Amino acid sequence: MGQACTLTLDAMGGDHGPGVTVPAALAALRRHPDVRLVLVGDGAVLEQALAAAGGRLDERLSIRHTGQVVEMDESPSQALRYKKDSSMRVAIDLVKDGIADACVSAGNTGALMATARYVLKTLPGIDRPAICTTIPCIGGRFRMLDLGANVDCTAEHLFQFAVMGSVLTEASGDATAPRIGLLNLGEEEIKGNDQVKHAAQLLQGSDLNYVGYVEGDRMYQGVADVVVCDGFTGNVALKSSEGVAAVISHYLREEFQRNLLTRLAGLVALPVLRSLRRRLDPRRYNGASLLGLRGVVVKSHGGADAVAFEEAIEVGILEARKSVPTLIDERLGTLFAEEARS
Amino acid sequence: MGQACTLTLDAMGGDHGPGVTVPAALAALRRHPDVRLVLVGDGAVLEQALAAAGGRLDERLSIRHTGQVVEMDESPSQALRYKKDSSMRVAIDLVKDGIADACVSAGNTGALMATARYVLKTLPGIDRPAICTTIPCIGGRFRMLDLGANVDCTAEHLFQFAVMGSVLTEASGDATAPRIGLLNLGEEEIKGNDQVKHAAQLLQGSDLNYVGYVEGDRMYQGVADVVVCDGFTGNVALKSSEGVAAVISHYLREEFQRNLLTRLAGLVALPVLRSLRRRLDPRRYNGASLLGLRGVVVKSHGGADAVAFEEAIEVGILEARKSVPTLIDERLGTLFAEEARS
Repeated sequence: MGQACTLTLDAMGGDHGPGVTVPAALAALRRHPDVRLVLVGDGAVLEQALAAAGGRLDERLSIRHTGQVVEMDESPSQALRYKKDSSMRVAIDLVKDGIADACVSAGNTGALMATARYVLKTLPGIDRPAICTTIPCIGGRFRMLDLGANVDCTAEHLFQFAVMGSVLTEASGDATAPRIGLLNLGEEEIKGNDQVKHAAQLLQGSDLNYVGYVEGDRMYQGVADVVVCDGFTGNVALKSSEGVAAVISHYLREEFQRNLLTRLAGLVALPVLRSLRRRLDPRRYNGASLLGLRGVVVKSHGGADAVAFEEAIEVGILEARKSVPTLIDERLGTLFAEEARS
Repeated sequence: MGQACTLTLDAMGGDHGPGVTVPAALAALRRHPDVRLVLVGDGAVLEQALAAAGGRLDERLSIRHTGQVVEMDESPSQALRYKKDSSMRVAIDLVKDGIADACVSAGNTGALMATARYVLKTLPGIDRPAICTTIPCIGGRFRMLDLGANVDCTAEHLFQFAVMGSVLTEASGDATAPRIGLLNLGEEEIKGNDQVKHAAQLLQGSDLNYVGYVEGDRMYQGVADVVVCDGFTGNVALKSSEGVAAVISHYLREEFQRNLLTRLAGLVALPVLRSLRRRLDPRRYNGASLLGLRGVVVKSHGGADAVAFEEAIEVGILEARKSVPTLIDERLGTLFAEEARS
């Protein structure tokens, strides 16, 4: 059993709302006897979804009624100003008030980031929160940040991302002294833009385990545990990767459907292809961390199904148990103390 | 038969040098009876490679002896200053002197770009040359630029890339009025950095077929014929894509080798997997265009084999026959005339 903790779920968020969040909540409660969940959203709708999923309220599962919902295409400023009783906002408020240890939402990323930042505030020493996710690679997985919260980043921002990614990776038990790489268009020192070059100097001067520049293809070889980049580049890299995986799976399907013979071959190969699909299943990697805040907020993919949303809850549980924001705060304190000494 | 033209090959460039460039040259000559090639490099070495490949010199194939070679890790400034008799430099000089219509090199990208820019100069109205390549996607292929020549780009640079990509795509016969997309981290107008937003305005105000922002995953769905981005983002996106393809192929191999049963399934599926590999074969997409110069220069992958290098020669032949630099120059002239009128 892990440490007891309470999570709020933005139960109305995402493309599917309670149809996904409620069954995922029940599954997470079965897996973790020491976890409490608060479903935040329209009470009547949630009770119905709960009954449909065969669950019921008890001391580990409660509902917090709210009257509003942040739409998937709503602008962050609109959501902040006019949706103070939304499931997203209240789920975060409860973390701020210390009633919950983490919040998980499949709601729209911009609104979630803006609300989380406004309500929870950033940690001292962190200028901007970043979005971080785990990505499969040869030999395991790595974490990448920022994935789109920050379009333009200074070297200092990139350095802060490195600290946050390192702390999360270590807290997750994926690596001790995680290898930090800076995403760049070459591995030679002279390559890259000014921000990246300056960030490299900051990282070299710190006690983080900085391993140098990493190219887009090399990160999939598992050369770093944490890959740091600005949000524009990170978003494009991640989405390009998803795009290529989709093309390959499209081609694979086409090739196996070419004629009777290839269809038979496809039948024979089916178990292998299924097992490949399981390994690459993006649902297994669902749950992006909004790092740098004074509280744990996890963003699920908007189109997540119950299996995927449960993965996002897992990320929230882990970060709540490990108190990742406190760990980041402590790590920053050490780094600044070092700097002051040197 | 196409239009007659002459190409210079930097026969010493790339990881394999004449062992690859000479057989590729012979294959290209067989395919194109109207093409002349000049092998540029160490005369004795080239004659030997030619004999080994069963070829001989004639009125369509000549050797231009040079005494130097630009190393794969040589800095652009070193190459420019001290390698004036290198195969790379002389191959470009011959284009500048009007003796050849295009140059193909598998040499190091930085040195090739610097030398080409220094010797050939950029076209009027082009601030910086860009690297452009073709990429397979669902339903066909698209072109992407810049892929690494320009780390920081202004909106005007991005606009010029769009013009160049549009002209090349049209000249290649891949599309009339090619759809131009701007790579961005979302498709809403408010997303992106200042350069991208401003470039969108420039494109909207032009008569190019601008279709809006394109996300990293959507470009693989074939939503644009030309995807425009700064060189940092483009390089990371392309290499990430290659990295993911490598991971999937690695996983696929692992899954098929898991046990006797999966190995048998792999045998049955082999023809299908081979045909998939052919479709995704990066050699078929070898040959990146250095656009924006007063001459045609094509960069082959450094590790290219003869099949891949021949593809790069094909790109050079096409651009030489269509006089792509002249077409770009004319297109820019029209755009500027329009601007002056409006």
